[in-house]
Amino acid sequence: MDKKVHTSTQYERELKQVKENLLYLGALAEKAIDCAMTAILKRDSAMAQKVIADDEAIDRLDEETEELCIKLLALRQPTAGDLRFITTAIKINGHLERIGDIAGKISEKALLLNIEPQLKPYIDLPRMAGISQSMIKKSLDALIREDVALASEVRHDDDQVDNLNEQIFRELLTFMIEDPRTIHRALLVMQVSKNMERISDHAKSIADMIIFMVTGRNVRHRHPEINGI
Amino acid sequence: MDKKVHTSTQYERELKQVKENLLYLGALAEKAIDCAMTAILKRDSAMAQKVIADDEAIDRLDEETEELCIKLLALRQPTAGDLRFITTAIKINGHLERIGDIAGKISEKALLLNIEPQLKPYIDLPRMAGISQSMIKKSLDALIREDVALASEVRHDDDQVDNLNEQIFRELLTFMIEDPRTIHRALLVMQVSKNMERISDHAKSIADMIIFMVTGRNVRHRHPEINGI
Repeated sequence: MDKKVHTSTQYERELKQVKENLLYLGALAEKAIDCAMTAILKRDSAMAQKVIADDEAIDRLDEETEELCIKLLALRQPTAGDLRFITTAIKINGHLERIGDIAGKISEKALLLNIEPQLKPYIDLPRMAGISQSMIKKSLDALIREDVALASEVRHDDDQVDNLNEQIFRELLTFMIEDPRTIHRALLVMQVSKNMERISDHAKSIADMIIFMVTGRNVRHRHPEINGI
Repeated sequence: MDKKVHTSTQYERELKQVKENLLYLGALAEKAIDCAMTAILKRDSAMAQKVIADDEAIDRLDEETEELCIKLLALRQPTAGDLRFITTAIKINGHLERIGDIAGKISEKALLLNIEPQLKPYIDLPRMAGISQSMIKKSLDALIREDVALASEVRHDDDQVDNLNEQIFRELLTFMIEDPRTIHRALLVMQVSKNMERISDHAKSIADMIIFMVTGRNVRHRHPEINGI
């Protein structure tokens, strides 16, 4: 009896550990986006280098969390609900790791942009970054609280990011056509904007999985996005 | 005794079904890339529409395969090796579904490109598509045969696709600077090239997972790609 209680507690501790790892990964991913955006806005190449170097911590935590999930599947026989949580956690983990990678890619663009004179003041880019960061936070809050309404909000936020990306694209296209000397820089900014849009897509995927985990309803393929660039 | 034999056979049948679904998903993804590329090369908008419509079949199979994997985890208690296979299958499944999505995005660009006169003959794009298709095929062969050497080959192929993407980028940049009237079309072709490079990244991720599944060696984060655009 004692043993059973002990095992159950340890199992719960391990499940809690998975949740905590995901929250910590989310915090690292948010921070990476924030620093990558600062590297662009303040033209801070040292900051960009730091984001690239710090991605290793995200990668390690991703590996560790996945191993923990697989260990839980192997050694405990999780109930249906816990099983669904653990398989969802494995996938969320992968999305957060990809967000870290993309923040690294934005930082590489910052390094290139910082060599050249600034093309224009950035207004929409930090807006995209802010929304994306809040999407990550909301989706992980939704995971912990199993809050479907909050996860649905994230889906809505993604539309805003898509619209900003399209707006930035059109604006930069005009710059390029009017003055070909801006082409290289405009392309880099377009790529940063597209990277941010992909981060937002990952956050949306996380939200979709939470909706599925909680309700069994698959919303992933209900609104095909044929407007991505 | 009879029951046990029966159960074991059914379990093996279900495991086999997961493998078959992944192979079929891989075949659908390869076909989607092929058709999307034809839509661009032959300026065939009907073909592009077909790729976009057919993505639903990929999405359905993705959902079905994931459900099957979770059912296997829940109802059978897979051994360590099978467990690793099933959790890997869940992730490979997700990558194949994303490849289908990206083929859809390439097809959307085809629809836009087909409205305008062709910018230039495409030589490197079909080369990228060919390599990416073969990477998907090789990585799934590697999964079935647990062939680490073949999976490693896929990692090498990804470098070729990255190089082609960079080459296309530089070439189109020259077009844009020399004649701003080409900018819009050149941007679309750059996006197609970037889409293809992402497909190749997904195939590489599949290969990395197979290497990890078979050897326990994590190669994913060993060669940080800081040259992506």
